[in-house]
Amino acid sequence: MDVELDIRTTARVDIVDVTDAVEDALPDGTETGLCTIFVPHTTAGVLVNENEPRLVSDFESLLERLVPSGEEYEHDAIDDNAAAHLRASILGESVTVPIADGALTLGTWQSILFVDCDGPRDRRLRVSVTTRESS
Amino acid sequence: MDVELDIRTTARVDIVDVTDAVEDALPDGTETGLCTIFVPHTTAGVLVNENEPRLVSDFESLLERLVPSGEEYEHDAIDDNAAAHLRASILGESVTVPIADGALTLGTWQSILFVDCDGPRDRRLRVSVTTRESS
Amino acid sequence: MDVELDIRTTARVDIVDVTDAVEDALPDGTETGLCTIFVPHTTAGVLVNENEPRLVSDFESLLERLVPSGEEYEHDAIDDNAAAHLRASILGESVTVPIADGALTLGTWQSILFVDCDGPRDRRLRVSVTTRESS
Repeated sequence: MDVELDIRTTARVDIVDVTDAVEDALPDGTETGLCTIFVPHTTAGVLVNENEPRLVSDFESLLERLVPSGEEYEHDAIDDNAAAHLRASILGESVTVPIADGALTLGTWQSILFVDCDGPRDRRLRVSVTTRESS
Repeated sequence: MDVELDIRTTARVDIVDVTDAVEDALPDGTETGLCTIFVPHTTAGVLVNENEPRLVSDFESLLERLVPSGEEYEHDAIDDNAAAHLRASILGESVTVPIADGALTLGTWQSILFVDCDGPRDRRLRVSVTTRESS
Repeated sequence: MDVELDIRTTARVDIVDVTDAVEDALPDGTETGLCTIFVPHTTAGVLVNENEPRLVSDFESLLERLVPSGEEYEHDAIDDNAAAHLRASILGESVTVPIADGALTLGTWQSILFVDCDGPRDRRLRVSVTTRESS
């Protein structure tokens, strides 16, 4: 099963909780398997962590500290978004979550967070489910 | 196949080698497939690298340098562990290792390292194995 | 399906585009599934981002800034490549890309980039394809 979710981001850096959308995309009857969430963009990434507003603000500050927006990057001569590429590369483009009893096996405090580093934009997120042989 | 491993960490930042435990969790008869290791926590992560004591110490120093514990974070007003969340987000929550001939295809120097950033605690690690169709 | 690609890197830090090699490794008849790219080394990693020469240079600068080569690391007493291990740990060792219609579902600007942090060397990259049950 392969579904593409549409995401509309609303700020330059925008962290969007997509947990419910991913859960809704799981096909009926998937009892056990793997769910791979893949970001088909080069200036956005995906994170699995707690969706708490002050922590989300801390994530944004961390990206700014590790990859400052004011610094000079070579890629900016071509397209003024080098920092967004570099931030996405730290976050990563895929995460795989096991499915059990028909649901994502996320921990109590875990959410799936789509991180746009170069918004606002219309973005896509690919959700791919592999059914596992039971054993 | 889906197994949960129990891990007891013993320090605030604690890097635990779980390679043998993950290998032991592979079901008999799995010749080829994928093994996804997933951390269901928001203040711990997983790393695949060399388990050499001085390098492990370097990993801990790197986390402290990228996300200093002495800095002010907004989330600390709620729960005094923002740095642990941020460190986990850099490490990542899942890694997928191919299985061949019934074993993880890790390189010579690779170990699977569970990284607690907010210990000591009782932690869990999910090991999910997908059997692959041969071709 | 499990294939190992050989990669010859030519510099201490060398970022090699392996997208075509990974695509060529997909077995005929794989319409839908998952492709896991796994690096079996502790001083190299994998990145999915844009292969634009100036951006590639920015990636190399970022690694140098996050993990400076001039700093003192404990592991250097054993093997003078601690920075390479630490950089690899930030990049990560696996990425999983969904396959649809027989091709990797990479976004327009995405390439799969093998990042050697301790070259030049002969390296390997494991490509593992899981065929998905259709639904």
